Amino acid sequence: MSIKIKDITIDSIQDAIREQHDEFLLGVINELYAADIAEVMDELNLEEAKYLYTLLEKEEAAEVLMELEDDVRERFLASFSTQEIAHEFIDNLDSDDAADLINELPDTMRGEILAHIEDRQQAQDIADLLIYPTNSAGGLMGKELVKVHASWHVVTCIREMRRQAEEVENVYTVYVVDDDEKLVGMLSLEKLLIASPRDKIETLFDSDVISVKATQKGEEVAQIMNKYDLVVLPVIDELGRLIGRITIDDVVDFIKEEAERDYQLMSGITQDIESTDKIWEITQGRLFWLVVALFGGIIGSRVIANYEDQISINPELAFFMPLIAAMGGNVGIQSSALIVQGLANHTLSGGIFPKLMKELSVGLINGLVCSAILMVYSYFFAPSLALGLTVSVALMTVIIFASVFGSFVPLVLEKMKIDPALATGPFITTSNDIIGLFIYFMIGRLMYGFF
Amino acid sequence: MSIKIKDITIDSIQDAIREQHDEFLLGVINELYAADIAEVMDELNLEEAKYLYTLLEKEEAAEVLMELEDDVRERFLASFSTQEIAHEFIDNLDSDDAADLINELPDTMRGEILAHIEDRQQAQDIADLLIYPTNSAGGLMGKELVKVHASWHVVTCIREMRRQAEEVENVYTVYVVDDDEKLVGMLSLEKLLIASPRDKIETLFDSDVISVKATQKGEEVAQIMNKYDLVVLPVIDELGRLIGRITIDDVVDFIKEEAERDYQLMSGITQDIESTDKIWEITQGRLFWLVVALFGGIIGSRVIANYEDQISINPELAFFMPLIAAMGGNVGIQSSALIVQGLANHTLSGGIFPKLMKELSVGLINGLVCSAILMVYSYFFAPSLALGLTVSVALMTVIIFASVFGSFVPLVLEKMKIDPALATGPFITTSNDIIGLFIYFMIGRLMYGFF
Repeated sequence: MSIKIKDITIDSIQDAIREQHDEFLLGVINELYAADIAEVMDELNLEEAKYLYTLLEKEEAAEVLMELEDDVRERFLASFSTQEIAHEFIDNLDSDDAADLINELPDTMRGEILAHIEDRQQAQDIADLLIYPTNSAGGLMGKELVKVHASWHVVTCIREMRRQAEEVENVYTVYVVDDDEKLVGMLSLEKLLIASPRDKIETLFDSDVISVKATQKGEEVAQIMNKYDLVVLPVIDELGRLIGRITIDDVVDFIKEEAERDYQLMSGITQDIESTDKIWEITQGRLFWLVVALFGGIIGSRVIANYEDQISINPELAFFMPLIAAMGGNVGIQSSALIVQGLANHTLSGGIFPKLMKELSVGLINGLVCSAILMVYSYFFAPSLALGLTVSVALMTVIIFASVFGSFVPLVLEKMKIDPALATGPFITTSNDIIGLFIYFMIGRLMYGFF
Repeated sequence: MSIKIKDITIDSIQDAIREQHDEFLLGVINELYAADIAEVMDELNLEEAKYLYTLLEKEEAAEVLMELEDDVRERFLASFSTQEIAHEFIDNLDSDDAADLINELPDTMRGEILAHIEDRQQAQDIADLLIYPTNSAGGLMGKELVKVHASWHVVTCIREMRRQAEEVENVYTVYVVDDDEKLVGMLSLEKLLIASPRDKIETLFDSDVISVKATQKGEEVAQIMNKYDLVVLPVIDELGRLIGRITIDDVVDFIKEEAERDYQLMSGITQDIESTDKIWEITQGRLFWLVVALFGGIIGSRVIANYEDQISINPELAFFMPLIAAMGGNVGIQSSALIVQGLANHTLSGGIFPKLMKELSVGLINGLVCSAILMVYSYFFAPSLALGLTVSVALMTVIIFASVFGSFVPLVLEKMKIDPALATGPFITTSNDIIGLFIYFMIGRLMYGFF
C-alpha cells in the first residue's frame, strides 16, 4: 500500500464529517497511516477533529494523538476531562509517550490523570518516568521491553517472550538479566530462531552490550546511538539494573530538534517557533535579539558620534562604515559556526590556543584577499588612494579580529558550561559591528590624517 | 561493558605500536568498539594506523574502516593495491557500505576492484548499487535482507531464514514476496516466534508495508522514515520487486549532514568543512561569501556616496547607518531561516501571498516595537528629535521590507527548484544592507529636510 493522502482533499473530509458520512471516513482512515491521519486532523477544526477521532480504533487513536502538532494536541486534549484523557488516551500509549503527553499538560491535571488510569502497572511505569527530566536518558526511555534471565532455557525464554511481546510493539532485541535484575547482555531474535529449545540462554547471549544510565543527558544518548549505529539502547539505574530502553525514533526527533535549535539560535530566534505558528508567537521568538541588536546599533552610533568632526571633514570615510561592519559580522558568524558545529559533533580536541592560532591564519588569508580586492577597486574607482589604503588596512584588521573573536567566544562559553550556540548569530554580529566601527575609526584617525 | 576509550591514551598506543607490543594492543582492541578504534586510528599516522589495523579481525576491520574520518580513510586506502582493497576490505563489508567506499575512490580503480572481488554475488550486488546516485533511495540501500515467499510454511521460512540470516547483520523485519518477487508485506520476528510451524506465511504476514522506489530522493526517504518512525524501509524497483532495504542508521547520518549543510549555508560557508580541516580548505569554504559581501559593501558605499552632500551637512545621519544595515540584516535572516526550515520540514502549505502577508504583520509589530524604543532613546539622548523621528521611520520601513524580502526570496527559489537554503545568511544580509541604506537615505532626504 502506498501513501494516498494526496488523492483525498481536506475539503472532501470536511464535507463527509458535516454529512456524518462515516462509511467514507472509515475508508479514508483505512487507507492512511497514523501520521497521515494526524496531518489531516492538524487541518481540521476542533469539532471536526473530534468527530474523526471517535471513528478511530483505540490503538490507532493513541498513535494519531502522538503524531499531532504540539499545539493542536494541546487544544484537542483541553476539550476532554482528566478521566477521559486517562481512559481514552493514556491507557493505550507506550509508557514513554504517555509520560511525554502528561508532561505537556498543566501540573494540576497530572495527579488526577494518573489516579484515573485503570492499568496500575502502566500508572506506576509513567510515574517512574515522570521523575526524569525530559532531556535525559530516563526522559527518553520507555519501560516496554522484553527481558529474560540468563539461567533460563530457550523454551522458557520463548514462552515468556510470547507473554511480554504482546505489550511491546517492536522487540528489536531481547535483554538478558541476572538474578539481581542487572543487565548482563543481549540476545538477538535471529539467535533465538536458530537455537535449539534446550539450549541455555547463558550459552547464547552476547555480553557486549552498550547501555546508558537514566541520568545521562539526551545529547550523550544521541551521540552514543549515532556513533555505534544503535537502533535501541538499554537504560540502567545506578545499580546496573535494567529499567528501560530508548528507541532510535525518539532520538532522531531529538537530533532534529537539536539541529533546528542551533539553526534558530544562529538566525537570532530564541524560542522553538515555526512559520506556521501564530503571528504573536513568531514575533515573541524574534524580538529579543532584535532589541539586543538595536541597542548594539545605538552603541555603534555613539562610537561613530565620537568621530563626528572627522566625518564632517571627510564624509567619504562614512561610505565604508556599513562595509566594515558587515564584513566583521560575516567573518564572525563563519568562525563561530565552525566552532559550535565542532563542539556539537565532539570533533574538537586540544586547547583553545592552537584553535585561535588557526583562526588567526584563516583570518589573515581571508583578510589579505579581501583587502587586495578592495585596493584594486579603490585604485580605479575610489575618491582617493589614501581612502582605499585606510579602508583596506581597517578591513584586514577587522577580519582578523572577527575571526579570532568569533572562535574565542563560543570556546569560552563552552568552558563556562554555557551553550556555545548562544554566541552565534546576532550576538557575534552585533559585537563585531561595534568593535569593527571602533577599529575602523581608530585606523582612520591614525592613517587618514597622514595623507 | 562500558566505553573505555578515555582510560587509554593515544600516546600509550603509539608507544605500544613502536615497541610492537601486540599483547597490549590486542587488549585495547578487545575493550573497544569499532567506532572507538576508528577514533584512535584517526589520530595515528599512516604507518601506525596500518600496524594497528593488521591486528584486527577481518569483520571488525571492515567495520572500523567505515567509521574512519573520510580523509583518513582516503589516505589509508591509497596505500593499498586494488587487489588488496578488494580482498581485505570489500569482501567483508555490507553491499551498501562497499558501494559507498568504491564511490569514494577514483573512477579508474572501480572496475579493477570489482574484478578482484572473490564473492561474485557481492560484486554483482555492488555493481547494482553503483548505478544509483548516492543521494537516492538506491544509493542508500543495502542488498542484505531476509525475504520469504507468501506461499511457504513457517517451518520452510525458518529454515530459509537461518541460511539468509548468516549474511544479514540485523534482521529487524522479514519481507514477504509473491512468486514474481514483488513485495507484498512483512512479517515481524515476534510473529514468527509465536506462530506454529505449520502455519502458512500468507495467513500471518502484514500487508501494510511502506516502501520506496530506488529512484526516490534521499530527502524523501529521510522524511518517510522519520514521519512513520521506521527503523528499516524496503526499496522496490519500477515493477514493485523487492531489491533492497534502507536502515535508519544511514538515514540518521543523512539527516545530520543535511542539517549541517543548512547550518553552514546560513553562516556563509560554501563547502562541507570542519574546524579540524586544513587552513587552506577552511579558507576556501569561507572566501566565496566574503567576497560577495565585500562587493555588496562596495555597492553600499556607492549608495552612500550619492548622499555625500547630505552627510557633510548632517553628519549625524551617518551615525545610524550601521544600525539600519544591521537591523535589516537580522530581520532578513530570521525571516529566511523560518521559511527555509518550514520548507525542509514540509510544514508549509498554501500559496506565497498569505505567507508574505503574515511576515508583513510580524514585521509591522517588530518594526513598531523597535522604532518605539529608538524614539524613546532619541528623546533623551539624540542630538535632535528630528533625527530620532527620521531614523525611527526608516528603521520601521527597513524592518518591514526585510521581513517580506527575507521570506520572499527562499519561497521564490523553491518555486524555481533552487535550494532555498542558499538564500539565507550572507545573501540576505548583503542585499538587505544595500536596500536598507537606500531606504534610509531616501527617507532621510524626504523627512530630515523638513525639520
